[in-house]
Amino acid sequence: MDSGRLSTFSDGVFAVAITLLVLEIRAPEDTHDLGSELARLWPSYLAYVVSFLLIGLVWANHHLMFEHIRSIDRPLVFLNTLLLLDVVFVPFTASVLARSLHDGAGERIAVGLYGMTLAVGGVFFNLVWWWAGREHRLLGDHIAPEEVRLIGRRFWRGPPLYALGALIGMALPAAGLVFFAALIVYYWLPADRRARPPVPAD
Amino acid sequence: MDSGRLSTFSDGVFAVAITLLVLEIRAPEDTHDLGSELARLWPSYLAYVVSFLLIGLVWANHHLMFEHIRSIDRPLVFLNTLLLLDVVFVPFTASVLARSLHDGAGERIAVGLYGMTLAVGGVFFNLVWWWAGREHRLLGDHIAPEEVRLIGRRFWRGPPLYALGALIGMALPAAGLVFFAALIVYYWLPADRRARPPVPAD
Amino acid sequence: MDSGRLSTFSDGVFAVAITLLVLEIRAPEDTHDLGSELARLWPSYLAYVVSFLLIGLVWANHHLMFEHIRSIDRPLVFLNTLLLLDVVFVPFTASVLARSLHDGAGERIAVGLYGMTLAVGGVFFNLVWWWAGREHRLLGDHIAPEEVRLIGRRFWRGPPLYALGALIGMALPAAGLVFFAALIVYYWLPADRRARPPVPAD
Amino acid sequence: MDSGRLSTFSDGVFAVAITLLVLEIRAPEDTHDLGSELARLWPSYLAYVVSFLLIGLVWANHHLMFEHIRSIDRPLVFLNTLLLLDVVFVPFTASVLARSLHDGAGERIAVGLYGMTLAVGGVFFNLVWWWAGREHRLLGDHIAPEEVRLIGRRFWRGPPLYALGALIGMALPAAGLVFFAALIVYYWLPADRRARPPVPAD
Repeated sequence: MDSGRLSTFSDGVFAVAITLLVLEIRAPEDTHDLGSELARLWPSYLAYVVSFLLIGLVWANHHLMFEHIRSIDRPLVFLNTLLLLDVVFVPFTASVLARSLHDGAGERIAVGLYGMTLAVGGVFFNLVWWWAGREHRLLGDHIAPEEVRLIGRRFWRGPPLYALGALIGMALPAAGLVFFAALIVYYWLPADRRARPPVPAD
Repeated sequence: MDSGRLSTFSDGVFAVAITLLVLEIRAPEDTHDLGSELARLWPSYLAYVVSFLLIGLVWANHHLMFEHIRSIDRPLVFLNTLLLLDVVFVPFTASVLARSLHDGAGERIAVGLYGMTLAVGGVFFNLVWWWAGREHRLLGDHIAPEEVRLIGRRFWRGPPLYALGALIGMALPAAGLVFFAALIVYYWLPADRRARPPVPAD
Repeated sequence: MDSGRLSTFSDGVFAVAITLLVLEIRAPEDTHDLGSELARLWPSYLAYVVSFLLIGLVWANHHLMFEHIRSIDRPLVFLNTLLLLDVVFVPFTASVLARSLHDGAGERIAVGLYGMTLAVGGVFFNLVWWWAGREHRLLGDHIAPEEVRLIGRRFWRGPPLYALGALIGMALPAAGLVFFAALIVYYWLPADRRARPPVPAD
Repeated sequence: MDSGRLSTFSDGVFAVAITLLVLEIRAPEDTHDLGSELARLWPSYLAYVVSFLLIGLVWANHHLMFEHIRSIDRPLVFLNTLLLLDVVFVPFTASVLARSLHDGAGERIAVGLYGMTLAVGGVFFNLVWWWAGREHRLLGDHIAPEEVRLIGRRFWRGPPLYALGALIGMALPAAGLVFFAALIVYYWLPADRRARPPVPAD
């Protein structure tokens, strides 16, 4: 069975989830001191930008993964559904994070929850790739087994890094957020060519 | 008329409906006792996970169905619209279920409504397949009439099972929820190879 | 320029708009008398079902129209954007309608607004088809000019019918709603073969 | 790597963002004086129509851009993600604008924020095109380098115009809104053939 429609469906879920992030930023009820009111929303902007770039990153890697996955079976669809279930949960954890930063209370739990959600999503992501790569059953012939393992090793770096961010955040919330921001820079920016293999540039 | 754009549209509706489920889980207003506040949301998490996996399942079967449906006519589009109308209703019934479990009141009606919505959706689902298969008019030549009947018989198992879950839930809400969880395991997990025919693994 | 991506984008907008309809149906705050609380939501269910079937109908006709439109230019994209702007407005008018029926006040204005939104959408719909068909510039060669005119004549029946429903509703709200329900049956159900030409069955 | 799935994902984000605009228009709580209540929502209608036509315009230009972009690399995906991050932010700025006009307070800041969001989005838009066009690396062979530069020059007109609108609006909010309306007319309407090159008509 062709993987095309699973990609389309997943793209749709990613697109809706990433867009729902904006619903958490609520326009001030009172606009008489609009400048200060907008400034007070900084935790929402922060949660929005970080979450948008992280979900965008997961989408980009999902895209790469499905460039290689050529057919699907039911367990793969199930694992992919678990991954999407986790991605769609991110707007909720982002909302908890923004409120917690706004209230100045509960930040440790909020950053911990945020990071653990990403870590669990990373595990599901890797399970999809592992299942597709077993005996090369669901992959195209254009990709060599060594490359499958290489990509898998890179993907496996994600969950422990996200879990580490969660742990740091449970001790020092601000440091945890800086850590996630650093992950975004590390994964997205082409400072080091080896740091951006998921979507090859050439 | 080609069935491609109907699939795309349906995928979009499934993707939005499954993602809207997260809007029901509202971040606590007060984050000073965030741990307990998050724990109190367990009915929302439960409704979210169960509904996500059920809608994902309907999507997977819809995907399978439209692998075989090659052309469409207006009655088929109408029946598919009724199916989507029912699927989009699920976030509402999930929200009712979560509130009812949270309040500890109205669970019988909430579980009953939840299950009946799934049962009605299952009927529309089967009507789509029945209409497409009449005299093999809208199906591709790659599928034999016996296989059409076989798939149809499997699809027809859904509605009575969902209705049974609704009835169980109207007597014993918790038992109804366990029943739906068991259905999810039964349909998604490849414990028994005959239990996962909709998306063939090989 | 190929019309494919305009269809995809339009499908996405239709899919989101039709799904957002469910957000108007809000789960009861209190579930202690859940049965009556759910029953009191009947105006929301009514607005949901009617609007879902009407948007689904517009989608089906849009689908048909773009089976014939093979290339696009900027004015066509603009007219299509106006059509989508109107379709996306429907969840708002459906929400106004539901609240008005619930309060038992303002129904004349609510039904009138609802119908006029549909009538205006129908005008934009026809402008898209008219622009595409001018000198056959944006249509494929597979469709004859007479068929273009025939389809156009059928499409033009919509706006006056919707406007008539709005007028009836401004005098007798309940009669206006019955009129819209009758339109749905007339357009969707294959009672009369000539009544369902937009998506040919054979 | 093919640009197809990036287009699909972007289309999805555009479609959800443009549709979420309607959520800002809230049905009146009380429908006893529905006519006046609906009339009082004029700032929401204005923000809705202007934002819908502007996002639709960005989508149309994005469409044109990806007609020429044939392959993608990670920096391009990153820049496109920043563009989408900005587009998805528009429903928030539209909501701020509507509330500010409704309250009659904070309009200068609201129109300024609205315009600056568009200007920043325009910069990201141009960065995508600039990156794709560097040494013609990600473009198809069907487009000549001169045409790439020509399109780029046209695209670059956007950010200063939006920034100008923001500045005008910070001095005279109503004049800023008229300016944005004029931009919409200028970009969408085919009054002058040279004014509508992005999607060639012939």
